[in-house]
Amino acid sequence: MTKRLYNFGAGPAALPLPVLEEIQRDLVCHPELGASVLEISHRSKWFEGVLASTEYNLRTLLKIPSEYSVLFLQGGASLQFAMVPMNFLARGGPAADYLVTGAWSEKALAEAQKSGPARAAWNGKSGGYVRTPSPHEPAYTPHAAYVHYTSNETIHGVEFFDTPSTGDVPLVCDASSDFLSRPMKVERHALIYAGAQKNAGPAGVTIVIVRNDMLEHVPGGLPALLDYGLLAREHSHYNTPPVFSVYVVGLVARWLLETIGGLEKMEEINRVKAQFLYDALDSAPGVYRPHADKACRSRMNVTFRLPDEATEAAFLAEAKTRGMIELKGHRSVGGIRVSLYNAVPLEAVEAVAKFMREFAAARAAKA
Amino acid sequence: MTKRLYNFGAGPAALPLPVLEEIQRDLVCHPELGASVLEISHRSKWFEGVLASTEYNLRTLLKIPSEYSVLFLQGGASLQFAMVPMNFLARGGPAADYLVTGAWSEKALAEAQKSGPARAAWNGKSGGYVRTPSPHEPAYTPHAAYVHYTSNETIHGVEFFDTPSTGDVPLVCDASSDFLSRPMKVERHALIYAGAQKNAGPAGVTIVIVRNDMLEHVPGGLPALLDYGLLAREHSHYNTPPVFSVYVVGLVARWLLETIGGLEKMEEINRVKAQFLYDALDSAPGVYRPHADKACRSRMNVTFRLPDEATEAAFLAEAKTRGMIELKGHRSVGGIRVSLYNAVPLEAVEAVAKFMREFAAARAAKA
Repeated sequence: MTKRLYNFGAGPAALPLPVLEEIQRDLVCHPELGASVLEISHRSKWFEGVLASTEYNLRTLLKIPSEYSVLFLQGGASLQFAMVPMNFLARGGPAADYLVTGAWSEKALAEAQKSGPARAAWNGKSGGYVRTPSPHEPAYTPHAAYVHYTSNETIHGVEFFDTPSTGDVPLVCDASSDFLSRPMKVERHALIYAGAQKNAGPAGVTIVIVRNDMLEHVPGGLPALLDYGLLAREHSHYNTPPVFSVYVVGLVARWLLETIGGLEKMEEINRVKAQFLYDALDSAPGVYRPHADKACRSRMNVTFRLPDEATEAAFLAEAKTRGMIELKGHRSVGGIRVSLYNAVPLEAVEAVAKFMREFAAARAAKA
Repeated sequence: MTKRLYNFGAGPAALPLPVLEEIQRDLVCHPELGASVLEISHRSKWFEGVLASTEYNLRTLLKIPSEYSVLFLQGGASLQFAMVPMNFLARGGPAADYLVTGAWSEKALAEAQKSGPARAAWNGKSGGYVRTPSPHEPAYTPHAAYVHYTSNETIHGVEFFDTPSTGDVPLVCDASSDFLSRPMKVERHALIYAGAQKNAGPAGVTIVIVRNDMLEHVPGGLPALLDYGLLAREHSHYNTPPVFSVYVVGLVARWLLETIGGLEKMEEINRVKAQFLYDALDSAPGVYRPHADKACRSRMNVTFRLPDEATEAAFLAEAKTRGMIELKGHRSVGGIRVSLYNAVPLEAVEAVAKFMREFAAARAAKA
């Protein structure tokens, strides 16, 4: 295969083609280095520059206020599930509240409960994880240690479009799968984390944005690599960061700023892409059964079922012959999932939507 | 710069040129994928194959017995400093013994002491970290939880050439900076860990080799990402592994097997390279002051001082004009460090040795 397929993977996911081409061009010998970026010291002036410019571009894109630190860590969102409570939840103190809207927030809560008192202030599980709570539904703990939510549930395809209001209680967001897909009210959050491998870069780097006053609550004696305070003081340089992955995040951030023109523009494009797909979905209600409630439908991960598993298998097989890959739903829920991250071009979305309409029409003709 | 320089970095460090060329060729569109490796799902059959073949090649290279698991994790050796005691050291139980031979084992001990009773069974600090202990020097705790050693100290340039004998006490090795540079007696160890960014690949992946019976001692309630038992059961797939970094480790392992011909061959080459450099060093004792005792001199990191910092600066500046980079010693000890990892070609070592002889001769002529 010398032709790139349409990649609808849920993460690791498509990257912008110009970014890949720049990586390829400089892979063996970056002209500023005389070496590959894969070989370069994390203490080199060059990489210091990459870290600084990547942080600067993320600050510009997301309008991150100066009283926040931006960290580049490892271990994915799953390690953040543990780090947030290890840093901000005390065994004898008030509970942390979790808004449980899908598989990922469920996992985050389970990890928190290993560290201290943590509970679901709202849980969509019995409803099948089809929506986010409306503002007054969650039963918050007064003076909770923090409130945690997952802005987009990658597996269930449910997304928050408003930032939860928690007053003085610190708000923590797992933004892994819609990070950089639209503007975000960073100033309403105490901490935001995101595995890069959806919209921001390759697997292997996690971005953490933390308000500096939170770092005063970090208890002593934490393992160095799990201590946000230490990691912030060391500017993500306590040990060797994932140099190459950070470099790719830097290229993606520059692409978002310079080629796309910022997150407002990116959101407009993502809105159009999602509309295209949901219109195709809604055009054949006898064939496609969308998972999420309309108001909470994710713009990143469009999840739906077909009438039976045999039809789903036929759908996937035919998609593949048309050059469309990674459309299978997560193994825990089955069905189909079309991920529409930033780097998935409109052309790919048009192609899959066209295929969906044709597939539905062919089924109607047969019936 | 379109020409690759001689890169003597201590890590992230030089990678084999054919590996870089293969990565570059397939970067935008891997022929087996129709996508970039940077974009591909960690649950894809293709990546399952990469994981399996990388593990198989590491097992072949290191003769890893079947009762060991091979894991690909994140967080570098620094996270292993914490994970080893979290998994194998109990607060009320026997102490863990550390052989402290340089900056890295010192850090490993400090992290262990956050988890439970850990002590130095031998400490070379007062001697300036110039050697490893002889077999009968360490004062081991009877029935210690484990003994930990650092097979090569990257900063001080001190290397173990014999595996410490600890009888029935589990032996843990931080092999980060000489991993895959020579054969290793895996069967003498309970656990071996190595950040990849010296001989095995790029920064962002850590290889852990653990004897399966050790996993029975892992306490319940650990954060998922820090629990060796869970990570082994999930075959490094509990969450998204650093896909691209693992792929590069796979290419490096294949290069070691197919191009170099295995670790015995690699050791021969590394022996020759180190001899070349130490001969140059010893040829001008008035100029070069090697750090380590002769018997413990690292084949990976050759560390030495010059008479004063001005001469060191002149040495580094002249090296740079000859296309040799990353020769500066670690900021904590100063001086010069020449790292000679697997991928540093003999040609580069000849070049730096020649330069060292000429630099010394020029100084002698001036004096």
